[in-house]
Amino acid sequence: MDPLDRIEQTLETAIACAEQDSPRKLAAALRYAVFPGGARLRPKLCMSVAWACGADDWALAEGAGAAIELLHCASLVHDDLPCFDDADMRRGKLSLHRAFGEPLAVLAGDALIVMAFDALAVGAQNRPGRLGPLVRIVSQAGGAAGGIAAGQAWECEPQIDLSRYHCAKTGSLFAAATMAGAAAAGVPHEAWRNVGAYIGEAYQVADDIRDAVGDASVLGKPVGRDVALARPSACRELGLQGAIHRLDDLVDLAISAIPACSRAAELSGLIRQEAMRFLPEDIARLAA
Amino acid sequence: MDPLDRIEQTLETAIACAEQDSPRKLAAALRYAVFPGGARLRPKLCMSVAWACGADDWALAEGAGAAIELLHCASLVHDDLPCFDDADMRRGKLSLHRAFGEPLAVLAGDALIVMAFDALAVGAQNRPGRLGPLVRIVSQAGGAAGGIAAGQAWECEPQIDLSRYHCAKTGSLFAAATMAGAAAAGVPHEAWRNVGAYIGEAYQVADDIRDAVGDASVLGKPVGRDVALARPSACRELGLQGAIHRLDDLVDLAISAIPACSRAAELSGLIRQEAMRFLPEDIARLAA
Repeated sequence: MDPLDRIEQTLETAIACAEQDSPRKLAAALRYAVFPGGARLRPKLCMSVAWACGADDWALAEGAGAAIELLHCASLVHDDLPCFDDADMRRGKLSLHRAFGEPLAVLAGDALIVMAFDALAVGAQNRPGRLGPLVRIVSQAGGAAGGIAAGQAWECEPQIDLSRYHCAKTGSLFAAATMAGAAAAGVPHEAWRNVGAYIGEAYQVADDIRDAVGDASVLGKPVGRDVALARPSACRELGLQGAIHRLDDLVDLAISAIPACSRAAELSGLIRQEAMRFLPEDIARLAA
Repeated sequence: MDPLDRIEQTLETAIACAEQDSPRKLAAALRYAVFPGGARLRPKLCMSVAWACGADDWALAEGAGAAIELLHCASLVHDDLPCFDDADMRRGKLSLHRAFGEPLAVLAGDALIVMAFDALAVGAQNRPGRLGPLVRIVSQAGGAAGGIAAGQAWECEPQIDLSRYHCAKTGSLFAAATMAGAAAAGVPHEAWRNVGAYIGEAYQVADDIRDAVGDASVLGKPVGRDVALARPSACRELGLQGAIHRLDDLVDLAISAIPACSRAAELSGLIRQEAMRFLPEDIARLAA
């Protein structure tokens, strides 16, 4: 089965399990938050790393990928809330709080965070010794110490530390994706942190570019928000061409950070291929 | 060391760890949400059950207790938000969103949920085989399928299922406390579910009674909210004396549900002693 299909199937199982004893509206909100998905970049990256490391337990790699995607979906739902971005649209449809109301958006985000850890425990049933490192990787990525909660919280500080902001808000989940892939395969994971961190930084730069010049219908959410909300942006800092070159450099850095593993060359190819899709073609061409 | 001191120490370590790489306001909000604590009923119950089951690893029992308390603190912070109870006060001080603003209240809640699972993984370092069941117990207690997210979400439904509402909103964390205590001690945990569930139901009845007749200065939060918000309440259903008798019955049920274990008699005594404090003396006396 294609890695993407495996991820969709694992996410479907997690949602179906929650629906069994959940109030109806909350169950619908969870499904709405997770399906249809975006590009599923993070779980695909996690699965690719597990594969490159010679994974021997696909249920665990799938659980790890699903956990990271569930955490990502949770952060999108909460970031869209009126007290943060107050976004009306997400992934081409109404944001969750616009469709279901604010209480269910808060609760769906909470439940998705919890479900992320449950997905790890379910996936690790045949490899209990690997669960501890995976829980720690995912909790670091989601938490207050450099995780996505920290990333969003930097926006509440009077002085923002730009590098820590991006590392936490975007890099942390990508770094978790590569580390979790390695940990799911039973190999040391710390060396995989930078691969994901660089990809995350590249993705952040691409997001800044798309926000600055993108088309809302392609992006599925409003554009021009960085300027409107005075948020830090690679485009504002480096200009459009500078930002596109920075993106390319970051992908090169990610690839050169890949630790020795059985399928390093194939993984490099996969990463480059995915990164090509970070920007719509017409924008990427501007830097050629 | 006293079980309560152990819990405070484990919570302190978790908060101190988050503070190390967290934006300053988020770090302060996390500390504010967890200290000074309430009665720490759930982690005390968890530790007592672990002790009654002959626990051989206190770090794990402490991690389990701290996880449940962190999840509880998260739910208090999110339940107080303007889109739910819109509470100004909690534990005798301003609610978190009143003290730090709504964005940090959402993020602190999220981070506390994540920290709960991290506390389990840290605690289980010497007993990796027990981590899986503990993660599942805690995720069930927090999640959409009968956990606290489900409990709060019942308030968003047009028709509320009262029994499922109370089970999820209050019972789930108490049930998790007793099950996690057993799982931390390495004994089968499912048989411990009802002990916690009955204690949780008793606590809910006590909370309804305190809300109906209590003193805000004792309770640390506004009273009369059940009537004001038209929430279901044991007092409205059974009358004051009926509710007090129901509370006593539930404590008896909890005690008779205790599975065979090495310190069953001592645990019964502890549970009865704790339950005596659910109500201020002058109210408890009304039913005598």
